[in-house]
Amino acid sequence: MPVTPEQQAEIDELRAQTQPTLRAVSPGMEKHLYKAHDVLDHGFVRVIDYMGDDEAICQAARVSYGKGTKSVQNDEGLIRYLMRHWHSTPFEMCEIKLHVKLPVFVARQWIRHRTANVNEYSARYSILDREFYIPRVEDLAAQSVINNQGRGETLTGEEAERVLRYLKDDSNRAYDHYEDMISEEDGKQGLARELARMNLPANIYTQWYWKVDLHNLFHFLRLRADSHAQMEIRVYADAICEIVKDWVPAAYGAFEDYRLGGATLSGKAVECIRKMVAGEEVTQETSGMSKGEWREFMGVVEG
Amino acid sequence: MPVTPEQQAEIDELRAQTQPTLRAVSPGMEKHLYKAHDVLDHGFVRVIDYMGDDEAICQAARVSYGKGTKSVQNDEGLIRYLMRHWHSTPFEMCEIKLHVKLPVFVARQWIRHRTANVNEYSARYSILDREFYIPRVEDLAAQSVINNQGRGETLTGEEAERVLRYLKDDSNRAYDHYEDMISEEDGKQGLARELARMNLPANIYTQWYWKVDLHNLFHFLRLRADSHAQMEIRVYADAICEIVKDWVPAAYGAFEDYRLGGATLSGKAVECIRKMVAGEEVTQETSGMSKGEWREFMGVVEG
Amino acid sequence: MPVTPEQQAEIDELRAQTQPTLRAVSPGMEKHLYKAHDVLDHGFVRVIDYMGDDEAICQAARVSYGKGTKSVQNDEGLIRYLMRHWHSTPFEMCEIKLHVKLPVFVARQWIRHRTANVNEYSARYSILDREFYIPRVEDLAAQSVINNQGRGETLTGEEAERVLRYLKDDSNRAYDHYEDMISEEDGKQGLARELARMNLPANIYTQWYWKVDLHNLFHFLRLRADSHAQMEIRVYADAICEIVKDWVPAAYGAFEDYRLGGATLSGKAVECIRKMVAGEEVTQETSGMSKGEWREFMGVVEG
Amino acid sequence: MPVTPEQQAEIDELRAQTQPTLRAVSPGMEKHLYKAHDVLDHGFVRVIDYMGDDEAICQAARVSYGKGTKSVQNDEGLIRYLMRHWHSTPFEMCEIKLHVKLPVFVARQWIRHRTANVNEYSARYSILDREFYIPRVEDLAAQSVINNQGRGETLTGEEAERVLRYLKDDSNRAYDHYEDMISEEDGKQGLARELARMNLPANIYTQWYWKVDLHNLFHFLRLRADSHAQMEIRVYADAICEIVKDWVPAAYGAFEDYRLGGATLSGKAVECIRKMVAGEEVTQETSGMSKGEWREFMGVVEG
Repeated sequence: MPVTPEQQAEIDELRAQTQPTLRAVSPGMEKHLYKAHDVLDHGFVRVIDYMGDDEAICQAARVSYGKGTKSVQNDEGLIRYLMRHWHSTPFEMCEIKLHVKLPVFVARQWIRHRTANVNEYSARYSILDREFYIPRVEDLAAQSVINNQGRGETLTGEEAERVLRYLKDDSNRAYDHYEDMISEEDGKQGLARELARMNLPANIYTQWYWKVDLHNLFHFLRLRADSHAQMEIRVYADAICEIVKDWVPAAYGAFEDYRLGGATLSGKAVECIRKMVAGEEVTQETSGMSKGEWREFMGVVEG
Repeated sequence: MPVTPEQQAEIDELRAQTQPTLRAVSPGMEKHLYKAHDVLDHGFVRVIDYMGDDEAICQAARVSYGKGTKSVQNDEGLIRYLMRHWHSTPFEMCEIKLHVKLPVFVARQWIRHRTANVNEYSARYSILDREFYIPRVEDLAAQSVINNQGRGETLTGEEAERVLRYLKDDSNRAYDHYEDMISEEDGKQGLARELARMNLPANIYTQWYWKVDLHNLFHFLRLRADSHAQMEIRVYADAICEIVKDWVPAAYGAFEDYRLGGATLSGKAVECIRKMVAGEEVTQETSGMSKGEWREFMGVVEG
Repeated sequence: MPVTPEQQAEIDELRAQTQPTLRAVSPGMEKHLYKAHDVLDHGFVRVIDYMGDDEAICQAARVSYGKGTKSVQNDEGLIRYLMRHWHSTPFEMCEIKLHVKLPVFVARQWIRHRTANVNEYSARYSILDREFYIPRVEDLAAQSVINNQGRGETLTGEEAERVLRYLKDDSNRAYDHYEDMISEEDGKQGLARELARMNLPANIYTQWYWKVDLHNLFHFLRLRADSHAQMEIRVYADAICEIVKDWVPAAYGAFEDYRLGGATLSGKAVECIRKMVAGEEVTQETSGMSKGEWREFMGVVEG
Repeated sequence: MPVTPEQQAEIDELRAQTQPTLRAVSPGMEKHLYKAHDVLDHGFVRVIDYMGDDEAICQAARVSYGKGTKSVQNDEGLIRYLMRHWHSTPFEMCEIKLHVKLPVFVARQWIRHRTANVNEYSARYSILDREFYIPRVEDLAAQSVINNQGRGETLTGEEAERVLRYLKDDSNRAYDHYEDMISEEDGKQGLARELARMNLPANIYTQWYWKVDLHNLFHFLRLRADSHAQMEIRVYADAICEIVKDWVPAAYGAFEDYRLGGATLSGKAVECIRKMVAGEEVTQETSGMSKGEWREFMGVVEG
């Protein structure tokens, strides 16, 4: 269970009392505040705070473009226009602060997105909990044989069992030894926490506060809610997508259409499309593309 | 008058209605929301939105340091500890969004602080207003004779009059010609706005939405609320200081003590202080410092 | 003439002497070092330093992907793969430092790209030169009637003459008064430079050192070497493109194909293309796109 | 041994051939290029590339301050002036690219410095080596009893032995199982690398290319070459300090004096110093400082 009874009590208390504010309020987001959305076996995502809504994006755009935005009839149209033309600064005017509990190997990918603010639980100061990510059997995938970074079929039988046994046993043993090393009982001095933590494997859970603006969040989601992302980070991105959809529905709709569901074509691909639409035949050989490019291009054209 | 009647009506309307929220609310900040604080002759600063309060800083710190922060009895003590030890990430968990109206030459300095989000009024799309910063007579300072970038005594008499006349006449003439160039009356085609704007001087007013986290705002304020900053940007920094004081009183107090009112000493200066406190005499010659360094050091030691 | 005789002498001297280095050297870039490429009437771009070459991009990618990159036969193929899949970090491993002389209104657009290092000539400390951008007659475009930020036809006849006269007269008069205000002759005190500069119009030239990594430079070039960019900044982007082409030919080739010459399609547009390629008819009405979107989509499909 | 024979052969080859360049060359840095400086038991730091030298810092400053910098007689004086007055942009004009091999728990601290470019070895694509950081006996410190994040006395006797045994056994067992999980021998499918890596502990070595400008590097070094930093990252910072000293001797000298060896005082501390220098007695009670602050203040004043 990701959330402890103490945490749930705190959440309930925070959700019990509203205060008046003059700021922009997103009703869809207020529903999410503080609640933990479960992810993986012990992880969660929860909204701690937010700034702005769809209207705030338009308001900022209208400061920039002034009378130039008059022609766009409504907010949704303006937001779609901004997204289509890569006008990123109005989206930067919204901000979200999340509390995330996640395995360390996921945190290591996540932190590569540098344009965000982070406060992570410190294993130099404090003692980590005995919580490890252990995949479900159906998520134990083999190395892909066609893609260096992807996953192939699901492991079966004894092999799957052995993998699960390793993951469970090793993490528990590592944690037993971690506890023993820092223990000050029985006359022991107790190893410094900043040293003892090095014995813990990458599937241990950590947690952090992560604050980011909407433009950079969309960039993160485009890469991590993508089918090429590792499943264990994609489930976090998917959970955040559901939250953002309620927070800024118009902006999320434009993001879904222009980024998540869209495609980027090279100059060569654009030329091929012009020929194909005109009825000409095009093959990989005549396209000027490599085999890998052509395969990806066909994925766009044929679906 | 910085604020137009339309803007004032909009401010009044926005301030008339509160909405309930579950988020952290800073009562001191709610008082400021939307209101315009006048700066210079036509400029202003006003708060459009904010995220977080003093407690949010502590909450983020406690995620990081966990039980490690237990020993600090209260929030104010924790905030002072964080500020003293340059733990900047908890302060990044607060965010502010300002609407600022300011002369272009001030905007050019301001924008050098890169860690912020900006939406500026676009003179490619829209037509700028006829509003120019004209200094008060008492602010017409001569070039400093001891400091390459500073100001010296105030100009007087005919020289001051001539300067004011130049500034007023030139900006008005430039604006007349700007209007004439973009005019499409009397069969004229009208020069593109993106070209016509190049005729306007650097004292014309622009405006933008500027969003920044509290850590980076403090960095901005330390440099710009400083006596070495140009007066025309310092007055904006001073106005923001007053706002931040009401928003996050404990954080602002720590900032005032450790940054605004503090001093940074070199290794040589620390050695001199040790000698001086021990009763030894130290001179510029024996200090190892250059004359400039020594003068600044004396400013710290003697006040 | 953008470059003064003193600057030319300095350039000649710097180019006369080579030194041995163990670092990666790009022969195509060495040809450009220090030389000024003229832009507009008084501006220039010149390379002051650079780090890395095409091979350095691959070297960094191979640290990341290790044996995973073995399958890609050569450097050019790897670079195209990285560009196609938005693997941006290897491109960040190259860096360029430019000296740019440019009008202030261009500098104001340019500085909006925040992920770069800048040292600009300071008009607080120093006196600006009497150099203003005056457009060529053929560049005096009217405001576009279909696009709020674009240019339309070229101004003609008396209207063009009047615009040029305004721009020349106003900038010269403003500079005369600038000089007079800061003058300390004839018993005058001389206005502080930081104040006097406010009288100068946005077509005055400034200069800066601008340092940026290749990934962020490509982002800048994609936006500014684009047909929607204002001509006065596009000519700088175009000049930089020519330099980058000689510096990292493979990376530039991939950038040209995938970014400059490519297109981004929305989910709706991808669906339309699938239908069109399959021989179905699609119209704006059945596409689900707005008129503006459809017009842009047709621009991609029909060229 | 940190460097493999293949790596050493590559280093020797790269160091055998120089090429001519017109760029700024730092002779002190050329000596370091490519060579591995050993850190910890299997780690290293080595310079892959650099841009600029002390003169480049001054050159950039002189673009900014123009004639304003004339009064400073020489480069070293100018650099000290820039450092003293927090003029950071000229230092951003130098850049360094390092190849670092380091334990994962060190990498996790390091990456928190966001203003840098990173390409890390990917355990999704590739297989990690069996290399773990095992502390020397003399580095096995107990948890500090006065500081939540610090280290106390060294562990002794059986406790030290047990800790070492845990660290060695657990990391080797984890690696054995890692190898077994990804193995495709004997008809096994082989778990995907991106999953198998989660079994590896935080003392396994990773490696990356890390590129940063000199200003941000100094910031990193100030925090990490500090006595409060964890020893295992401080040794990397110390190794980099030695390199920077040879690269930009004047800038490093100023950094050492103003940052590493300096001190930051609060407003209260400045007041105390004024009193103390004037011969007045000051105690913690009359200082207005907390006990913690006073202890740190005494550390500055008494050494």
